[in-house]
Amino acid sequence: MTHDADHEVYRRQGFGAELGLHGNMGFLLVDFVNGFADPAKFGGGNIAPAIERSRDLLAQARALRWPVAHSRIVFADDGADANVFAAKVPGLLALTEHAPASAIVDALAPVAGELVVRKTTPSAFFGTALAAWLTAHGVGTLAIAGCTTSGCVRASAVDAMSHGFRPVIVEDCVGDRAQAPHRASLFDLRQKCADVMMRDALLAAVRRRDAP
Amino acid sequence: MTHDADHEVYRRQGFGAELGLHGNMGFLLVDFVNGFADPAKFGGGNIAPAIERSRDLLAQARALRWPVAHSRIVFADDGADANVFAAKVPGLLALTEHAPASAIVDALAPVAGELVVRKTTPSAFFGTALAAWLTAHGVGTLAIAGCTTSGCVRASAVDAMSHGFRPVIVEDCVGDRAQAPHRASLFDLRQKCADVMMRDALLAAVRRRDAP
Amino acid sequence: MTHDADHEVYRRQGFGAELGLHGNMGFLLVDFVNGFADPAKFGGGNIAPAIERSRDLLAQARALRWPVAHSRIVFADDGADANVFAAKVPGLLALTEHAPASAIVDALAPVAGELVVRKTTPSAFFGTALAAWLTAHGVGTLAIAGCTTSGCVRASAVDAMSHGFRPVIVEDCVGDRAQAPHRASLFDLRQKCADVMMRDALLAAVRRRDAP
Amino acid sequence: MTHDADHEVYRRQGFGAELGLHGNMGFLLVDFVNGFADPAKFGGGNIAPAIERSRDLLAQARALRWPVAHSRIVFADDGADANVFAAKVPGLLALTEHAPASAIVDALAPVAGELVVRKTTPSAFFGTALAAWLTAHGVGTLAIAGCTTSGCVRASAVDAMSHGFRPVIVEDCVGDRAQAPHRASLFDLRQKCADVMMRDALLAAVRRRDAP
Repeated sequence: MTHDADHEVYRRQGFGAELGLHGNMGFLLVDFVNGFADPAKFGGGNIAPAIERSRDLLAQARALRWPVAHSRIVFADDGADANVFAAKVPGLLALTEHAPASAIVDALAPVAGELVVRKTTPSAFFGTALAAWLTAHGVGTLAIAGCTTSGCVRASAVDAMSHGFRPVIVEDCVGDRAQAPHRASLFDLRQKCADVMMRDALLAAVRRRDAP
Repeated sequence: MTHDADHEVYRRQGFGAELGLHGNMGFLLVDFVNGFADPAKFGGGNIAPAIERSRDLLAQARALRWPVAHSRIVFADDGADANVFAAKVPGLLALTEHAPASAIVDALAPVAGELVVRKTTPSAFFGTALAAWLTAHGVGTLAIAGCTTSGCVRASAVDAMSHGFRPVIVEDCVGDRAQAPHRASLFDLRQKCADVMMRDALLAAVRRRDAP
Repeated sequence: MTHDADHEVYRRQGFGAELGLHGNMGFLLVDFVNGFADPAKFGGGNIAPAIERSRDLLAQARALRWPVAHSRIVFADDGADANVFAAKVPGLLALTEHAPASAIVDALAPVAGELVVRKTTPSAFFGTALAAWLTAHGVGTLAIAGCTTSGCVRASAVDAMSHGFRPVIVEDCVGDRAQAPHRASLFDLRQKCADVMMRDALLAAVRRRDAP
Repeated sequence: MTHDADHEVYRRQGFGAELGLHGNMGFLLVDFVNGFADPAKFGGGNIAPAIERSRDLLAQARALRWPVAHSRIVFADDGADANVFAAKVPGLLALTEHAPASAIVDALAPVAGELVVRKTTPSAFFGTALAAWLTAHGVGTLAIAGCTTSGCVRASAVDAMSHGFRPVIVEDCVGDRAQAPHRASLFDLRQKCADVMMRDALLAAVRRRDAP
């Protein structure tokens, strides 16, 4: 847990400026798949409530015609693409194309026109066409939901920023299997990488900005 | 601070396997520049001791002929390359090519043949030739020192893993301006991305492996 | 030289559709540096006239407030970043930061606010922040001038397309040291990657599109 | 067709040095799928003979235990990932996961342990885990077969070089729908990017190098 004295250091050194909403919104849902919703597999903590709260955000994003992208971890059936990430977390190799654990949860199932990227690394941008797709769709600010906060969400947010998008972590729509890493990553992301907003605050800010 | 119950979740779900040393070693020093050594700028915490302990590791790496790479954050003099990272942390724009704050600390100054990459993002891999250079030099396992643990070191370690290298975070050679983020990132990195070893343990393991 | 029968194959298989102008324009000048303007170094052919014709295009781009980016090949003074490209073309290692040969030609010298990327590979996108910068500046269509058509221009155009930008090769503003490779690459680019337009036709199309 | 005078320019300017075989060999087969083997779709020219001659090279590569990777162009069933490449060549959108046209030809079907990357751009490296996989497998020199020479083979070879691998284009194992672009790209690749060798010469050179 960061202490008040820590916050003061970051404030004094000029971290944590607000990015604000610029350009078109896009929406990325990171790894909301059955295997990460299931505490017996890779889930637990506050992931289930994050999925539940993301339902309404996804519905709003669709109504507002934001480009929507989803990521899944998918390894080859024969394990030919086993990599360092899988060496560190061997169970990930079970997330093959047709394994139920690698399927996006029903509540957030993609619809036609939404991008689904398969990846074998934490970031949804690494080794995928996600950045190119968001660029071609004119996205300036990227709302991010998903799991886990300290893993694939964080890596994706860092890459979103590096690729030139303004990330907004939707605080109540990201989850992690343990709360200390969840909170520590939200702190870091807010200081160095992204805006962090509650779902309803984000939607209100978008509505305010886009009001005629 | 992660709790014992958290550790148990990670263990049960199969995180944190040891990567081990494979192939040739390489050494990356992340952002050990004057501005991050200086508590009045971006420094503080345990960064200074990490620099001190990295001196001997760098000397050993050179003696063992590991490919050595350094990273610096460098923005253009006219700020033309200001990006989202700089919007979040505006003071970074002062780290221009000839600003003393962007120069690598004297104690770890690069020598001929060592790669120095300039970057405008947390990861030393993003938008640089680092991965290609390590690949061309046949590096399999990448020892990482630098600062900050929760910022550029972590982003670089995640990318090192994604690019196919086995990262080893040298625990007493990485530092951060605040200790809670430092410890939280070491926990996450060890679970999902890298081996984490003390300097002397790493050197002993390398010597053991390479003994005739 | 491609023959009529070849064109017919491409037409029948559905290559060469027109991309058109979408979104904001950006302008990339590839490697218009002294060393590539000089027939005694890496220049020759129609590179000099391409530079001459790019002057007016650059002036127009600035007047229209397009984001403008330039690329240079720059290797480290100590050759530490020598790579496979330099193994293939050893003379490139002479293009160090302060070598006159690596400086952008006076006629097209960058002004404040224009991005200058240093690279050690053919593509101006590879290992640079160019894609992120164009994305952050909201570029949709990227006009490309520079040299050489069959080398760095072509590699940059392929990457521009892959990164989600619509490339327009400005035919009379790109040049090559030999005309057969120049013409062959224009053919390939038009079929599979980019629109190819003469400078005045491009400017007229932009004016037509943006007329009130 | 390049003329003798052109060759002389390249020679005088120092292009076309030989890379040679360094480190472990790997083998990449680019887009040898039914749709590119079929002159009624995207095939024709010398693609069929290139496939035929690649059979033996693939058998040898397997016997020598080279890491082997294949690429396929695959777009989503709903076209959600339609991009600039597909805007230029709309027929590519028919190459969906289960379309026979996107399946690797029977003669070169992947076996367990071989990487298969799906891509939506010319380069087999762009937006895929290919570079990371080759790095993790310790590849230094990458033999490249596939089609088309002037399209996906060329883009992949340029990226292979940029990622730090030494590309060898296997001249009689790459093919194109038209011969002028095929020959022009072989010329460019040999001057600026890769060694170009006939299959039997490559295998003989490898055997010579690795002889006890």
